[in-house]
Amino acid sequence: MHSLHFTAETSSNGVRERDFTVDGVPGVLWSPASGTGRAPLILMAHGGGNHKKSPAMAGRAHRLVTGCGFHVAVIDAPGHGDRPRTPHDEREIAELFRARAAGEPEGPIVVRYNAHLAEQAVPEYRATLDALQELPEIGPGGPVGFFGLNMGTAIGVPFVASEPRIAAAVFGLHWPDALADAARRITVPIEFDLQWDDEHIPRESGLALFDAFASKEKTLHANAGAHKELPRFEVDNAVLFFARHFPRAA
Amino acid sequence: MHSLHFTAETSSNGVRERDFTVDGVPGVLWSPASGTGRAPLILMAHGGGNHKKSPAMAGRAHRLVTGCGFHVAVIDAPGHGDRPRTPHDEREIAELFRARAAGEPEGPIVVRYNAHLAEQAVPEYRATLDALQELPEIGPGGPVGFFGLNMGTAIGVPFVASEPRIAAAVFGLHWPDALADAARRITVPIEFDLQWDDEHIPRESGLALFDAFASKEKTLHANAGAHKELPRFEVDNAVLFFARHFPRAA
Repeated sequence: MHSLHFTAETSSNGVRERDFTVDGVPGVLWSPASGTGRAPLILMAHGGGNHKKSPAMAGRAHRLVTGCGFHVAVIDAPGHGDRPRTPHDEREIAELFRARAAGEPEGPIVVRYNAHLAEQAVPEYRATLDALQELPEIGPGGPVGFFGLNMGTAIGVPFVASEPRIAAAVFGLHWPDALADAARRITVPIEFDLQWDDEHIPRESGLALFDAFASKEKTLHANAGAHKELPRFEVDNAVLFFARHFPRAA
Repeated sequence: MHSLHFTAETSSNGVRERDFTVDGVPGVLWSPASGTGRAPLILMAHGGGNHKKSPAMAGRAHRLVTGCGFHVAVIDAPGHGDRPRTPHDEREIAELFRARAAGEPEGPIVVRYNAHLAEQAVPEYRATLDALQELPEIGPGGPVGFFGLNMGTAIGVPFVASEPRIAAAVFGLHWPDALADAARRITVPIEFDLQWDDEHIPRESGLALFDAFASKEKTLHANAGAHKELPRFEVDNAVLFFARHFPRAA
């Protein structure tokens, strides 16, 4: 049994927002303000240098809650948001900034640092899922999806590969180096976002990670533009993807 | 001035269907049954061996008319539908069937035959657009899109490259050999469908055609599966694409 505590609650624009901790890890659960029985849960993971309530997280959650009636949860990654940085975190972040300033490739540093964080984050996501499925409005057997880009993919791919409760996932914007082996064990439907002109992730690397997934249903969405220029309409596509896989009675 | 004649009209499920000819080429125009002023036009082109009222065409048109309130028009390609085959058509089709039965690559035959048909079809599409823009419910200045896969892309890429009235297009499922040069002249937003495990079009060839488009906004949708297994949900995405580019007051 994991220790789930709700620490704050607000509600606005039809969305109920509850802060929680699971075994001390801080997270947030967004739900329809007016509950109507059980609903699917989408677990999200934020990007590097970001946190559980960043605009990207809150925006995606709002779309999934109001558009589909889903529950959406995110936890802070290790060293992110309300969680302390370790000396190891500080060293890796300093090394990333140094490489960036020197015009050196960021990939090797991001790949190894994100893999390190994922080792800790994967069991935290599993504990979060265990705890949230104890809530009557989510329940143990309902559909669960995963949605994470950038570092959220570095955490999500090993998580989904080892977690049979995840029935569909949206990933993207990462290197295959540390993830391809886990991706080969994933068979659920996936949608994968890639930037066609990514200045950090070589095109062949992004395509190789997409190629690695064993899923019979997998869709690559590759958009013209640089790493940070993922078009906003890809959120619409992700919402459509989850709505297609987790249909709800109107 | 092109000679537009309406030859038949039916209406069902909120969709008005009018058969027409432009300079003798047969086509069909689907429109909202209850007209409310001008609306955008989507020109579609059918695939090889198919025709203007095939289930794929009627299905896509129905979605665009009822979902977006657009007009949708298709004409029979040369040698297809209600149009006679020439001896050249017969030879190329026989050659395609022979190659298929012998397990030889279809690509070289499809590429050259479709390029031959496109030479005739491109001016026919231009004439159709000229004629349809004379209709008060479409008009001369409104948004026009193009939607064609397979042979519809072989016709559509040279058509859109030479037709400044097309503001957005959905293409896919073809080889770059005869199309990449024209694609490099296309700058309007495009969505491009590709099958990741296409047994006829090598993956690198499909990616090369997507890469060739000069569009600042371009999105590749690559799906796991064989040539004919394009998922039905890609029609939803195409509808979303056109709705995003041609927004209408509700």
